[in-house]
Amino acid sequence: MHPRLDKLLEQLDKASTQSLGYPVSFDFDYQALYPFLAYSINNAGDPFADMTYKLNTYSFERDVVEYYARLTHAPKDAWWGYVTNGGTEGNLYGLYLAREIYPQGIVYHSQDTHYSVSKNLHFLGMKNIMIRSQENGEIDYEDLRETLRVRRDVPPIIFANIGTTMTEARDDLAKIKAILDELAISKYYIHCDAALSGGYLPFIEHQNHWDFADGAHSISISGHKFIGSPIPCGIVLALKENVERISRSISYIGGRDTTVTGSRNGFSPLMLWQAIKTTGDQGLKERAEKALATAAFAVECLQQAGVAAWRNANALTVILPQPSAAIRDHWQLATANGISHLICMPNIRRVQIEALAAEIATEIEADNKAGKKEHEDD
Amino acid sequence: MHPRLDKLLEQLDKASTQSLGYPVSFDFDYQALYPFLAYSINNAGDPFADMTYKLNTYSFERDVVEYYARLTHAPKDAWWGYVTNGGTEGNLYGLYLAREIYPQGIVYHSQDTHYSVSKNLHFLGMKNIMIRSQENGEIDYEDLRETLRVRRDVPPIIFANIGTTMTEARDDLAKIKAILDELAISKYYIHCDAALSGGYLPFIEHQNHWDFADGAHSISISGHKFIGSPIPCGIVLALKENVERISRSISYIGGRDTTVTGSRNGFSPLMLWQAIKTTGDQGLKERAEKALATAAFAVECLQQAGVAAWRNANALTVILPQPSAAIRDHWQLATANGISHLICMPNIRRVQIEALAAEIATEIEADNKAGKKEHEDD
Repeated sequence: MHPRLDKLLEQLDKASTQSLGYPVSFDFDYQALYPFLAYSINNAGDPFADMTYKLNTYSFERDVVEYYARLTHAPKDAWWGYVTNGGTEGNLYGLYLAREIYPQGIVYHSQDTHYSVSKNLHFLGMKNIMIRSQENGEIDYEDLRETLRVRRDVPPIIFANIGTTMTEARDDLAKIKAILDELAISKYYIHCDAALSGGYLPFIEHQNHWDFADGAHSISISGHKFIGSPIPCGIVLALKENVERISRSISYIGGRDTTVTGSRNGFSPLMLWQAIKTTGDQGLKERAEKALATAAFAVECLQQAGVAAWRNANALTVILPQPSAAIRDHWQLATANGISHLICMPNIRRVQIEALAAEIATEIEADNKAGKKEHEDD
Repeated sequence: MHPRLDKLLEQLDKASTQSLGYPVSFDFDYQALYPFLAYSINNAGDPFADMTYKLNTYSFERDVVEYYARLTHAPKDAWWGYVTNGGTEGNLYGLYLAREIYPQGIVYHSQDTHYSVSKNLHFLGMKNIMIRSQENGEIDYEDLRETLRVRRDVPPIIFANIGTTMTEARDDLAKIKAILDELAISKYYIHCDAALSGGYLPFIEHQNHWDFADGAHSISISGHKFIGSPIPCGIVLALKENVERISRSISYIGGRDTTVTGSRNGFSPLMLWQAIKTTGDQGLKERAEKALATAAFAVECLQQAGVAAWRNANALTVILPQPSAAIRDHWQLATANGISHLICMPNIRRVQIEALAAEIATEIEADNKAGKKEHEDD
């Protein structure tokens, strides 16, 4: 191996033991699939159509999206979906569908929405209004109601966060639908960005109102987050009748052109398929429960160390006031507006959390001493 | 291995020996890189910036884009680029830049442009005018001139095909620029879709006018085509001053958000890097020459079999009247409007072309006999 590659491998190995801040699981093993990397696989176009080019993994991709369609209570035979390059593509797709249905529609999203959404909206040229967030990161329903009330002439497109980036707060579709009903708004579209939470919510008991059963028109879920994969991927699901509006017959590839990208990665569907097959519903449930237990432990452990840590109900994300730059860098803690978070993905071990808590505790102690000293010097 | 995976591997193996119709090279070997698939690599955001998340391959990605920047004569220190998920994303990016610079601009592209471009334009909400193509698939410069002449009030955005999908025809930037000069149009943007041809044009002697030296503002090249890779990928390059207009500071990832997708595949840059390192300029030149020689052989071989085959100068794509559905399916020949093509990628062997030619010859002979018989029966 080239020395630079050797060095990279070393760096990755080290970095992966010190990563607590990003919503990606590291505990995957796709070695059995490596032989497929000898082929130029391409899932161009619609996975439910046929293609002249035979080096594809459509049938596995269909299994994967069918699996998530079931988990998200998509209406039988009335949904469509595909495996994306990640959550952003799924959100872009959902918003694109919404725009095609309501070209004059206005997108409403909370101020805690992921930065990529503004980019998507700018891309698609969609008007949008930012709604206040509550303290926990959830959309402020009162602000949403009042903002919708004065714009009842234009169909609203609700971009719901099912787990915000910083606090993993979830907007409640039942509450949103109640507002739409109250205002007698019958034409609307709801897209759910369930990048992280959508991977495990189906397996826990007290899940929020967030899926097709609760009124979603499209949902984006990441594959590299809860399941985990070396390459970012995701699943997007949408109501079939809406997708059919935008599909176009393309003679060149002999299929319908319903996806965002043209040539598409056919290896990611294999990874997701294997993960689902080998882990199964029960395994994924246990995985979710273990991770949630780690998150509960993290809050307790950090609080005992004197840190004002907290988390939303049934969330893997633990929020804390930002520690020093050295600690943030060491544990790769994403930080914004003075708060940092750690995300208790299934691979995170309690010993890592204890180490982080101890480091912060030492820092607090040093700060206190310095403060006391300063006070004495006054 | 799961029996379904076993079967898939068999299918892929068979299909890859019978694929002549798609512009993807099969002769790659990235086994040395498989150990990297144990890590959750993510090249989110700008490869030239830093990120909190340390599991990335930015430095390799930078090497890859730098390599192509040199090949395409990008102005020193005045370009920017990244590794994409394929040609479509690169084209979307180029058009996005163009729209940001000229929001009222009209996109001009020939009727031979890839179907994904219309989708991109619709996505971005850009006005566009389709220009006639010449017989060989190249844009009709006369039609372009006359169409531009009557719309000199709006900046034109030229979407140039450096190798069309069906005939690999290349629009000539020198001719296009001469038209713009003649019409005294000073505000314009030129994006080049060099998906297939851009991979090998830099290595041949009589290349067309198609890169930054000839006036391109952005260029999209596929990685999975001429180089070859199991996962679709590509390179997009653009003038830095234009990219800076659309970059936004994003505190969350601690970097500038200049790419189309959020989370990005960090494995593809490693594959491209390895291919470039191990093959080198000289190796890629030989690869291009060999493939071009195969294309010349294919035309000759098919013509000798009685088929009206032809190709554009210095092109890997050989065009022929569509053979029967059985042959098209067997060799996975992409077909549109009565013409099929085979693409002489570096992995294509002459024996495969001879086999195809023999099959078509048998078909022609059978048709002739049937025709003669029919005639005799009259």
